[in-house]
Amino acid sequence: MTKVEEIIELAKRRGFFWQAFSIYGGQSGFLNYAPLGVLLKDNVIGIWKRNLLRHGAIFLDSPNVTPEEVFKASGHLDRFSDIAARCRKCGNKFKAESLLKEKGLIPKTSEEARELLMANRIKCPVCGSVQWDSYDFNVMFKIQTVDGSNLYLRPETAQGIFTDFKLLLNFNRGKLPMITAQLGKGFRNEISPRQGLIRMREFNMGEVEAFLDSNRVNFPVFPSDNMIRLVPNSSEETDLKLSEAVKNSMMGHDHAFFMDVAVDVLKDVGLTGSSVRLRQHRKEELAHYANDCWDAEADIDGEWIEVIGIADRGNYDLTRHQQFSGENLEVTDDGRSFTPSVIEPAFGIDRICFAILVNSYRKRENGYKYLSLHPDIAPYHCVFLPLQNKDGLDALAESIFSEMKKRDPRVGIDQSGSIGKRYARQDEIGTPFCVTIDYQSLEDRTVTIRERDSTGQKRIRIDDILALTVEEGKNPFSALYS
Amino acid sequence: MTKVEEIIELAKRRGFFWQAFSIYGGQSGFLNYAPLGVLLKDNVIGIWKRNLLRHGAIFLDSPNVTPEEVFKASGHLDRFSDIAARCRKCGNKFKAESLLKEKGLIPKTSEEARELLMANRIKCPVCGSVQWDSYDFNVMFKIQTVDGSNLYLRPETAQGIFTDFKLLLNFNRGKLPMITAQLGKGFRNEISPRQGLIRMREFNMGEVEAFLDSNRVNFPVFPSDNMIRLVPNSSEETDLKLSEAVKNSMMGHDHAFFMDVAVDVLKDVGLTGSSVRLRQHRKEELAHYANDCWDAEADIDGEWIEVIGIADRGNYDLTRHQQFSGENLEVTDDGRSFTPSVIEPAFGIDRICFAILVNSYRKRENGYKYLSLHPDIAPYHCVFLPLQNKDGLDALAESIFSEMKKRDPRVGIDQSGSIGKRYARQDEIGTPFCVTIDYQSLEDRTVTIRERDSTGQKRIRIDDILALTVEEGKNPFSALYS
Repeated sequence: MTKVEEIIELAKRRGFFWQAFSIYGGQSGFLNYAPLGVLLKDNVIGIWKRNLLRHGAIFLDSPNVTPEEVFKASGHLDRFSDIAARCRKCGNKFKAESLLKEKGLIPKTSEEARELLMANRIKCPVCGSVQWDSYDFNVMFKIQTVDGSNLYLRPETAQGIFTDFKLLLNFNRGKLPMITAQLGKGFRNEISPRQGLIRMREFNMGEVEAFLDSNRVNFPVFPSDNMIRLVPNSSEETDLKLSEAVKNSMMGHDHAFFMDVAVDVLKDVGLTGSSVRLRQHRKEELAHYANDCWDAEADIDGEWIEVIGIADRGNYDLTRHQQFSGENLEVTDDGRSFTPSVIEPAFGIDRICFAILVNSYRKRENGYKYLSLHPDIAPYHCVFLPLQNKDGLDALAESIFSEMKKRDPRVGIDQSGSIGKRYARQDEIGTPFCVTIDYQSLEDRTVTIRERDSTGQKRIRIDDILALTVEEGKNPFSALYS
Repeated sequence: MTKVEEIIELAKRRGFFWQAFSIYGGQSGFLNYAPLGVLLKDNVIGIWKRNLLRHGAIFLDSPNVTPEEVFKASGHLDRFSDIAARCRKCGNKFKAESLLKEKGLIPKTSEEARELLMANRIKCPVCGSVQWDSYDFNVMFKIQTVDGSNLYLRPETAQGIFTDFKLLLNFNRGKLPMITAQLGKGFRNEISPRQGLIRMREFNMGEVEAFLDSNRVNFPVFPSDNMIRLVPNSSEETDLKLSEAVKNSMMGHDHAFFMDVAVDVLKDVGLTGSSVRLRQHRKEELAHYANDCWDAEADIDGEWIEVIGIADRGNYDLTRHQQFSGENLEVTDDGRSFTPSVIEPAFGIDRICFAILVNSYRKRENGYKYLSLHPDIAPYHCVFLPLQNKDGLDALAESIFSEMKKRDPRVGIDQSGSIGKRYARQDEIGTPFCVTIDYQSLEDRTVTIRERDSTGQKRIRIDDILALTVEEGKNPFSALYS
């Protein structure tokens, strides 16, 4: 098994995610978050949200179902399409872009795609044939209401924000810059969904639209000025602080600010160092609305996968909605009227979760696997283990557990199997701390705390556990082991 | 304006919720949560989630888009329909049930609906005509994937859990009872959506499916044994503790347990006393899958509206999925094989939010309005107000604000307008505490804290604010004013 296959197996067996509707044979492109996955995803979302609140973001929650007019204006109805390649021999369909990616080729039209596939003798991944047809298709799912309106499932959450720009600006008392954000689902009728949480037909996004005046610096102070590997489209890759990248004219200051925010979020979820980089889109890769775009990519077992796209959408969307709706979407500031520009860091929540699982996956020398999850985002902060289910050890464990659970719902208790088995089980789901209640605990009210990565153990007092302060988004048990 | 209209006006003006896609004329049945609404809804969801975690619930997150096979099995494809009434004169369409509700009539077939409408001379709400046609229609939205599969937007989240029952049971190590829960969207192609957050075509649900052995008591200890107004379908309404209602054979013990959980959630969000009741469905009201159902209803300005439905689904769903999928969904316990029964408390998140707004809406003697929101669920926990934007008052306010914001992202700062205007603004959005920084603050590091409902004020020390402990889901500022 490849590492990714091993993680998918672990995720299914332990309950992070699994194929949706599997009793009916499953539905390609749709996954379920299983109980541990829901907890992990909630923690990732919490980190995303708190990072944005810290920067003064305001949030919107608009429907998945969106009227056709919106996507006429946004350009998605005309231009949000993929090129499908159909094998003439076996009839299987693929995304042309994916087939041509290895050769570094990006087709602009379906005709060009067919020519490139044929000229490069690209083989059908199913039957090996090199004979192709190709065609365009829109990736939005269409639905109708009972009264006959045409609607689409949104392929991105952003349009809900753009169409409400004036209301949001009014809420913000007319002030720019304004950071808006939306957490929600997106839907794309993908030809070839991928395994794992990488390319699904229904997915979780956390999109941020920052409206600003492109004639000035809007966000002067970088939150962290992270050092990061940069892969620009016209020069060599390099490690730089983002402020230096701006000085080198690799990107605009405000664009870099949101790359810094993106890297902060990745740091908080435990994705750091050589497992992440920022890569600039090549011109031909850019979406129809983008002037420039940098992807925060995570290393998924040797493959770089976009987890956050930080696009400069300019004033494309507001200009189009102004034109199509007839509403004035300009802002007046210091006597000057203008249509604000937009920087959009779009967080792929599922991909971030998957990158976390892949990058935290470790094997010990004895072959045992564990997930080295950041203590703050692990599904369980700490699990209590009575050494035996008798002699009052179980009762003591349960009393500590139920006392702590009142304040921190992310604690667990595990009473079945040997201690070694229970440690192994908790290691595999990334529980950072286990507290074992043994016979000595009955005498002196001390217990053993075990740290997952080092497997080191310490004797601590039960009263120190009970005195812990539980702050939102933090693992309180980290304070007991340092 | 009616009270509900006043609240919708306030919600729009202050930013709780507003019509979706209004620059394109809006889309009936679809609303946006605006910035304050998102914060309020997040707090409600947090309370729902923590209450369930406390009872050991495990969570699932399955797709909105669901294959046809699932709804064939669940019965939704055949039976989840509404009866539409079409006015023969003006052509407008309505839900027949809504038109007949006032007369206490519930039609079972479209033919019966037409007869009842005609016999009772029900007038068209638009043109006044009494001539009607009627027909059935399925309320699910249909979509197709690129590979031709028929899919539907789920009308309830529950089926995602039922189809994964075996996986969830395995995660739970085969143990019953098992409480599972899912937060997510539901979609219904409603003929006549209502204003406000009451009947939308896309809505937020928090559904809980508790799997149990109906031959025994599964949840022996009530969490609170709440006293509540009960409206049974065959006897007089009465105020009873739930344990007494069980003794009186009004409902099963486990069913009552989840009514208790439901009432706990309502208490935590501030919906208590005479504003809530539990009403049992009449036989003809029951959904096709339910043996019995009690609705937790909230008083929305004189109208009782369902906010939580607590249904006894028996083993209907698992039996059907077993039959349609061919998978064995039985459980073996003490040598006995059986299909578990299900109690389902389904929380209507939007309706709870709306009921909170309606029931917290107050007017002072001077005519000023305020929202008496529970301090824990208010969008802002506390807002800091410098008396003047000069002389260092603004700098001091900003330093306290930014210090507190690091730990509690739900604080705000408001620097524009007179103090009276700012109090009024915060009252209208339900901010429970305002802290005013004045000239005395510069001398002795004390500030004034003002409580919203009483408008009472107290002098407190800045250092006591900075020393507050922030626990998840709690308003830390409540500790300063008691």
